[in-house]
Amino acid sequence: MDIISLRRDFHMYPEVGFTEFRTASKIVELLIFFGYDVIYGRDAMDEESRKGVPTVGVLEKEYHRAIKDGANSEIISQMKGGYTTVVGVLEGKKPGPTIAFRFDIDALPILESQEMDHHPEANRFGSKYEGTMHACGHDGHIAIGLGLAEKLSDGHFSGKVKLIFQAAEEGVRGAYSIVQKGLLDDVDYLFCHHLGADVPTGEFHGGSTEFLATTKMEGHFYGIASHAGASPESGRHALMGAATALLNIHAIPRFSSGLTRVNVGVLEGGTAANIIPEYAKMKVETRALSKEVNLDLEKRVRNIIAQSAAMHELEHEIEIIGAAIPISCDQELVELAIEEAKQVEGFTSFGNGNGKGIGSEDASYMIERVQEKGGKATYMMIGSSLPAPHHHPKFDIQEEVLPCAVELFNRIARRILQ
Amino acid sequence: MDIISLRRDFHMYPEVGFTEFRTASKIVELLIFFGYDVIYGRDAMDEESRKGVPTVGVLEKEYHRAIKDGANSEIISQMKGGYTTVVGVLEGKKPGPTIAFRFDIDALPILESQEMDHHPEANRFGSKYEGTMHACGHDGHIAIGLGLAEKLSDGHFSGKVKLIFQAAEEGVRGAYSIVQKGLLDDVDYLFCHHLGADVPTGEFHGGSTEFLATTKMEGHFYGIASHAGASPESGRHALMGAATALLNIHAIPRFSSGLTRVNVGVLEGGTAANIIPEYAKMKVETRALSKEVNLDLEKRVRNIIAQSAAMHELEHEIEIIGAAIPISCDQELVELAIEEAKQVEGFTSFGNGNGKGIGSEDASYMIERVQEKGGKATYMMIGSSLPAPHHHPKFDIQEEVLPCAVELFNRIARRILQ
Amino acid sequence: MDIISLRRDFHMYPEVGFTEFRTASKIVELLIFFGYDVIYGRDAMDEESRKGVPTVGVLEKEYHRAIKDGANSEIISQMKGGYTTVVGVLEGKKPGPTIAFRFDIDALPILESQEMDHHPEANRFGSKYEGTMHACGHDGHIAIGLGLAEKLSDGHFSGKVKLIFQAAEEGVRGAYSIVQKGLLDDVDYLFCHHLGADVPTGEFHGGSTEFLATTKMEGHFYGIASHAGASPESGRHALMGAATALLNIHAIPRFSSGLTRVNVGVLEGGTAANIIPEYAKMKVETRALSKEVNLDLEKRVRNIIAQSAAMHELEHEIEIIGAAIPISCDQELVELAIEEAKQVEGFTSFGNGNGKGIGSEDASYMIERVQEKGGKATYMMIGSSLPAPHHHPKFDIQEEVLPCAVELFNRIARRILQ
Amino acid sequence: MDIISLRRDFHMYPEVGFTEFRTASKIVELLIFFGYDVIYGRDAMDEESRKGVPTVGVLEKEYHRAIKDGANSEIISQMKGGYTTVVGVLEGKKPGPTIAFRFDIDALPILESQEMDHHPEANRFGSKYEGTMHACGHDGHIAIGLGLAEKLSDGHFSGKVKLIFQAAEEGVRGAYSIVQKGLLDDVDYLFCHHLGADVPTGEFHGGSTEFLATTKMEGHFYGIASHAGASPESGRHALMGAATALLNIHAIPRFSSGLTRVNVGVLEGGTAANIIPEYAKMKVETRALSKEVNLDLEKRVRNIIAQSAAMHELEHEIEIIGAAIPISCDQELVELAIEEAKQVEGFTSFGNGNGKGIGSEDASYMIERVQEKGGKATYMMIGSSLPAPHHHPKFDIQEEVLPCAVELFNRIARRILQ
Repeated sequence: MDIISLRRDFHMYPEVGFTEFRTASKIVELLIFFGYDVIYGRDAMDEESRKGVPTVGVLEKEYHRAIKDGANSEIISQMKGGYTTVVGVLEGKKPGPTIAFRFDIDALPILESQEMDHHPEANRFGSKYEGTMHACGHDGHIAIGLGLAEKLSDGHFSGKVKLIFQAAEEGVRGAYSIVQKGLLDDVDYLFCHHLGADVPTGEFHGGSTEFLATTKMEGHFYGIASHAGASPESGRHALMGAATALLNIHAIPRFSSGLTRVNVGVLEGGTAANIIPEYAKMKVETRALSKEVNLDLEKRVRNIIAQSAAMHELEHEIEIIGAAIPISCDQELVELAIEEAKQVEGFTSFGNGNGKGIGSEDASYMIERVQEKGGKATYMMIGSSLPAPHHHPKFDIQEEVLPCAVELFNRIARRILQ
Repeated sequence: MDIISLRRDFHMYPEVGFTEFRTASKIVELLIFFGYDVIYGRDAMDEESRKGVPTVGVLEKEYHRAIKDGANSEIISQMKGGYTTVVGVLEGKKPGPTIAFRFDIDALPILESQEMDHHPEANRFGSKYEGTMHACGHDGHIAIGLGLAEKLSDGHFSGKVKLIFQAAEEGVRGAYSIVQKGLLDDVDYLFCHHLGADVPTGEFHGGSTEFLATTKMEGHFYGIASHAGASPESGRHALMGAATALLNIHAIPRFSSGLTRVNVGVLEGGTAANIIPEYAKMKVETRALSKEVNLDLEKRVRNIIAQSAAMHELEHEIEIIGAAIPISCDQELVELAIEEAKQVEGFTSFGNGNGKGIGSEDASYMIERVQEKGGKATYMMIGSSLPAPHHHPKFDIQEEVLPCAVELFNRIARRILQ
Repeated sequence: MDIISLRRDFHMYPEVGFTEFRTASKIVELLIFFGYDVIYGRDAMDEESRKGVPTVGVLEKEYHRAIKDGANSEIISQMKGGYTTVVGVLEGKKPGPTIAFRFDIDALPILESQEMDHHPEANRFGSKYEGTMHACGHDGHIAIGLGLAEKLSDGHFSGKVKLIFQAAEEGVRGAYSIVQKGLLDDVDYLFCHHLGADVPTGEFHGGSTEFLATTKMEGHFYGIASHAGASPESGRHALMGAATALLNIHAIPRFSSGLTRVNVGVLEGGTAANIIPEYAKMKVETRALSKEVNLDLEKRVRNIIAQSAAMHELEHEIEIIGAAIPISCDQELVELAIEEAKQVEGFTSFGNGNGKGIGSEDASYMIERVQEKGGKATYMMIGSSLPAPHHHPKFDIQEEVLPCAVELFNRIARRILQ
Repeated sequence: MDIISLRRDFHMYPEVGFTEFRTASKIVELLIFFGYDVIYGRDAMDEESRKGVPTVGVLEKEYHRAIKDGANSEIISQMKGGYTTVVGVLEGKKPGPTIAFRFDIDALPILESQEMDHHPEANRFGSKYEGTMHACGHDGHIAIGLGLAEKLSDGHFSGKVKLIFQAAEEGVRGAYSIVQKGLLDDVDYLFCHHLGADVPTGEFHGGSTEFLATTKMEGHFYGIASHAGASPESGRHALMGAATALLNIHAIPRFSSGLTRVNVGVLEGGTAANIIPEYAKMKVETRALSKEVNLDLEKRVRNIIAQSAAMHELEHEIEIIGAAIPISCDQELVELAIEEAKQVEGFTSFGNGNGKGIGSEDASYMIERVQEKGGKATYMMIGSSLPAPHHHPKFDIQEEVLPCAVELFNRIARRILQ
């Protein structure tokens, strides 16, 4: 199997979180082909624990789009409603511990560059879906995961392999739902990773630091419309509440305990200049070095939204649309990964062992669960020099890194399950 | 010609301001048929003086939609880009003064009711364009105008008749552009009117009071996007500026000189929770009893937007998307209109002669111009009991009023041009 | 008794609301001298119903100041704590109805002009209390009241006279407390008045319109101090709450039912640049044409303060420090007063009978009570051309107006009690 | 000379920044007695570079208070207007480098505890000035400085000694003015220090880290008063501008480059509930790890104040009332100080050599100037266990530390000037 071609195929059909129907369908088919037991659909994701799921209308539309573009309709009928995580499980010939690898599979709502200096465009595998793009390297992650699946398909190891193809990492929305389904409870060793970040091709880090706790929220303000000329006093102005909340959220104090962040990134409301707006919504995020401080920030945001609404006699709702916690890597795995990487051609530099995290990651919930249950986990950084930053229309990965990563993960698995 | 049928045809094909291609095409055809000279397209509207014109994309799309639905493509090729006002001119057999009547022709972005207690639905002339509706009676206005055109087509009068079918009255956007083209400069007598308001069927007012001066503005805030986690300080937060403006605009003081209104009816900005938003826009309106106080309000809004933007190192733009001024009716015409109405079967009640205005009206610019040039003008209220208020999904007019109005206007024209 | 000298004496010793100890002492002494029964101290004011009473410390200090400056210590010992209203009652020789006149007696915290073109300065009766001044004519009101007391002291009338010398009209704080003590319950005819406003010397109005309902509030925000550098997050920032409230109070919508006003006139909080402020307070007022709309405004202000505080985890308190309601004059008394004024030398012009009110007045509560009980009341405007507006350091009244007013009120009383 | 008694005398007569007339007078007298050349008054402080100087009235009042309490009127006549820094200079017997020590001398506007568990109260040297207190240990600093002056008065060293007794360290207001007078330009070695912080008795640090750059500002908003009922629109509301600035200052974004702080600690404006407030002022501070980021914050605050004022058509002024920059200690001096401390009985522990700074310090300007000119400098932390934190009514220092500090500084001076 040519994992470069595989990556290019996924790149051409990018699908955003919870709509990865075609992507997941292909993954299921290949995992079955390689002999894995495959868990997917509602068996892989807890309904209530998913965050920021698109509307039913969007899910339906994307579902049919996927079928049109080659998804296996029998398989994805199990994924209807946005259950697009796939987990492949393979028992080795002998008993032993369980090792898991995690690969995130979703794309971004970004319009891909069509200029000829953009490698995918020049090589004719640019996104076929205008406005959607694999601009964070998850297409490469999937290819690595499937390449690893093939390598390990011989079953010549002692223990069990779990390959987790996670839906909806962007916006940190999907992982917690997999954790809540119990799929990490039996994992002894968990390896997560990312391509790129600021790590150049050839460099490898066995662990990572500086992942922040984060919460993404949507605040809804419900007022009463009225004519702004005829009876302004009988309206209840949703945007007055939302604007008050916005200013006050940004004014949440700095914390002496360390770095924090707050942002109201989106605010939308109202229908016309002459109508008191009856509805507004905002998207907010908080970040902090620790889970506790982030919870304090989240509590303050909730309170500000609630009181800003009440101040203008509005109703309100707050929805969590994404969340992650910090990551603490187990030193044992960090070192083991570096040792193995030193054996793989293509890795030539190893930093200080811990790469700098890339903001926030919901693999953090998987790592936390494994560690709570007594297992060990790490989050590795695999270098890939980038022509443009993550989430940029010209983002691209160096494809020669993909087989190195497969080789590395294969070595790690064999060593642990030896 | 059956003006009830005519009205129902216009009701089925509602077109919002500056996109009334099919409507205007029909009007042109009928006016030509009745022997009028017809002015339309760029001859009828000054380009720069139009306000709140839709984007080129929207204009283009609606243009083609209109052709598909029967607009005369030769005629509307002159209207491309949103020049959808039509003026019919007929010289009488003998010389004399010029009298003008004004009819507004646009519809609203409202989803029409499909319940069977809604007369147009029950009688199968509900809107064919989902989300667009004649919910302010302008379909009736057009029908009256064309009925009048037919009546006067004999030319048996001394002077000149001008029938002005104005585009884009909703949002008070189109009239000023017609005025600036000079089309009101030779008018000696101008009669404007509206159906409905709170005036019941059978009641007539020869004039109106309480039209407010108003300005509708769109404020644009241009910032700099940045990652809210990685470098919040390098962004320039467009929504911070917009929210600050919103609160401060609403806090503009009350005026001791009389009634004022301010409203930020729409605010939209940002793309994602984790991005410092680089763009936001708002829609604002001001209203006041006098033109001068409204200008003061407009100046304060402009200043607040400018400084709120500068405070956050944002660029900004302010666009006027609509405007109107108060209306002062000439008593001579008010009385003349009542006298004639008393001769028309169907009008049975005449209030105090001056109906209460309906918010703001850009016919005000036409009236002002006529009066500045030494002419006289009035704004009449023609009763029509309503099942639901203006701009409501179940709004409807009493069709029996239409022929009465035609008869009345015919009488007025004949008397003045006798 | 020379009422001009009397007025000048009161002018020299101005005392602000609830501290009119010397003033009230003089009034009591004179009323007793004229043979009146005198009600004062806690008998004249209900404790709980007083609003905006100064602190105990201030009351104590002013009390001793008054004794030093000639107040009768036995009399004012009954007024300790700010019970400085005085009511004189005289039964006529024969039975009959009860007529009351109301005179307000307090001064303002204004620094009186010491320029020689200021009449009191030039004539050596300028304020002896730096920073306090009779800048609203109440010194004249007292003199009129005492002049009237002397005139009526013969008791040659049928019925009862009540002369109410009210404390603390400025800030509309004192009247309600007198009403709640029941002192208006037996009044059949109530005459209130004001000197000046915009009415020139010689002009008289038997009634008034346009007094607004108003509420004056003090909002207190209680937070937690902390060091702004070391632990900003452990403070609770009282000024954040107060500033949020201020903006949102000013943004309370205009009312379609008529004129409204809101103002945050004072905001104070915090101790140092580097401390999260633990306390802030604001003074707010609302006004409206009707009592009901003013209550709606008051409710909105309360809600905004409460939620702004809660938003920042502050405690809060709201105190009513003043209030008044609209005034509706009984036409019968308006006309009677004009008829009598026409008999008094000095009054030469009578407007339309109803003078324009001067903002807000807590005599409104007295008028309301009298009318509720079936009596009649009016609020008269007695012209006095002014060198400078009310509340200005150079405000002064025309002293020749005082005897005319005494004569007028004497005539009114005699006529009603004939 | 008994430096414990000396410290207690200064403790009894605490004087806040720029009013240390009595304190400075005593210092001048003793330095002269010890044979030093003494620079003080306008020779020691540049007029324009002082920040946050009290008003002329306050300076005048404190000046006379000091004379009454024993200040030498001839000496302090040179200090009139708040020039209360004193510099003692002593040339050694032989030529050599110049060493300077800096002692800050001002007290705080804090009401000292009068409870008997407060050592100064129990020992009868509590503050004689109600509301003013040496609550930061500067009384001890002065005593150490004078003890050192006595020790070094023999002149048995090679080089020059400068003892700088700095006015107005609280609020970081006085040091820059001394620097601008050129008094640090010839200093080769500068030793600054503080007692207490979180360092226990017996512990010593030769240097310090984590002093923040800071700016303290006062913002003034000038509007136009008007009657809130009669003509709200003709006022210009100073508090609207100030409240808008307050919210937006607190919403200045966090910086990815490291710790920042912003605080509006004081806001005051307005005179009465019914007047549009014509004036408001605020006190703001910014802090940052680096001078550059602090300048960015200061620029943002200035911009927000300016635009918030302009938004409401207010004039504004911004005054810098205090400022400091970070401190970088020269390792050579850090180590030298520790070496000597190890020789002094009383110091038993030496941390890691660098104590944690205490917020912000304007000795930073002196250190910067010395280093710019090629000299070396450090800021030492001298342990003193505290019964209550700095700036607390029960703050106190351990007096046994004072002679140890004198001994240490004497050793340092002798070693450098050997």
